[in-house]
Amino acid sequence: MKPRVVVAMDQLATIHEAVELVDSLCGHVAGFKIGLPLVLRHGVQAARRLSLLCPDALWVADFKLADIGAVMVQVASMVVDAVDAVIAHSFVGGKGALDELKAYLDKHEKKLVLVVSMSHPGSADVYDKALDAVNAVVERIRPWGLVAPATRPHVVRSVRSRHPWAVILSPGVGAQGAEPGAALCSGADYEIVGRSITRAASPLEALREIAAKQEEALRRCKPGATG
Amino acid sequence: MKPRVVVAMDQLATIHEAVELVDSLCGHVAGFKIGLPLVLRHGVQAARRLSLLCPDALWVADFKLADIGAVMVQVASMVVDAVDAVIAHSFVGGKGALDELKAYLDKHEKKLVLVVSMSHPGSADVYDKALDAVNAVVERIRPWGLVAPATRPHVVRSVRSRHPWAVILSPGVGAQGAEPGAALCSGADYEIVGRSITRAASPLEALREIAAKQEEALRRCKPGATG
Repeated sequence: MKPRVVVAMDQLATIHEAVELVDSLCGHVAGFKIGLPLVLRHGVQAARRLSLLCPDALWVADFKLADIGAVMVQVASMVVDAVDAVIAHSFVGGKGALDELKAYLDKHEKKLVLVVSMSHPGSADVYDKALDAVNAVVERIRPWGLVAPATRPHVVRSVRSRHPWAVILSPGVGAQGAEPGAALCSGADYEIVGRSITRAASPLEALREIAAKQEEALRRCKPGATG
Repeated sequence: MKPRVVVAMDQLATIHEAVELVDSLCGHVAGFKIGLPLVLRHGVQAARRLSLLCPDALWVADFKLADIGAVMVQVASMVVDAVDAVIAHSFVGGKGALDELKAYLDKHEKKLVLVVSMSHPGSADVYDKALDAVNAVVERIRPWGLVAPATRPHVVRSVRSRHPWAVILSPGVGAQGAEPGAALCSGADYEIVGRSITRAASPLEALREIAAKQEEALRRCKPGATG
């Protein structure tokens, strides 16, 4: 089984480092997530250069888009040829915002992924309190995927039961505290892992350790689901 | 009186166009707002190049930051030398997010501006429903400024009365439908204007028309406040 890991490439100093990382992990991970720091440092063309290195992986542009539709579409248009999916925030709502982004991505046969809750404690200040309204936006927009935090498994479970059709990606694994496999056991489809892989002496070795922990967790929580 | 206008430079095709715009408006506007499309297209160094052309204006990096603290700080660090203020979403909350961004900007003597509501209709789906929780985040973080939409004056009035110490910037003027001066009359300090200035044949002429409308509105709503 290929590890259900999407590698977050947020904090890489050089493009060389990013290229090496993709080279070493391609074929072993489900996908790669490209963050804003990376494209601001190396230009949007870096996204295309990297995704061409491993075209079968799921490539996700994670700029946490949270603006009016015109601006989100403009940003998406700069990476639409380089990625398979774009992440935006559900809290900006439909009309004049996500409606327009969704229509644009549909036209280009790309996936929309909406954040419904975040991995840090401050997510409880507003985001988690607004979960009912956020869920209504998700139902209106019907994105391909959702982002829900591995650090709060009950949120993942609630999102999974509310939106059974959605692909759930869960950040917060590793450096941010969640154990590998915990989000998968709560109903996530992929776990997003950043620093524990990208800063490891051997990223592939770190990935293998995480994958082993994922499988072990899944064996315990879903005995029938693993080979 | 210098027009209380911050010009949004989101949708400019070339760096030459941006340079010309700053050259023609410098001295006549309160500030400039640099959006994500512009820096993605022209690189973060474009922000520094532009702000050096008009150092006395208020320069605002408007990437609508809405991520965990580590990522927001990393992005802010790339433009901190080029701008006076950075815009982030109040929605992401304090701990592990805005607490860290605020501490970073304080250290560098830069201003934090928090979005509390947005200019498009979809802002009513989640953001405006969560206004109480958003206001609590604003009180915790105590940013220099707030973004509240000129398109919904009652929101500006509510934000003004709740946070009398804050500088309020109001987008949505012009192309998005709000009349120049309406937000100022509701308590905003600056109106953010994009396309109606940046796409005008003569941006300076368009600015002057907007400024005249602002003054006229202020004469009606606050007779004592204008020269």
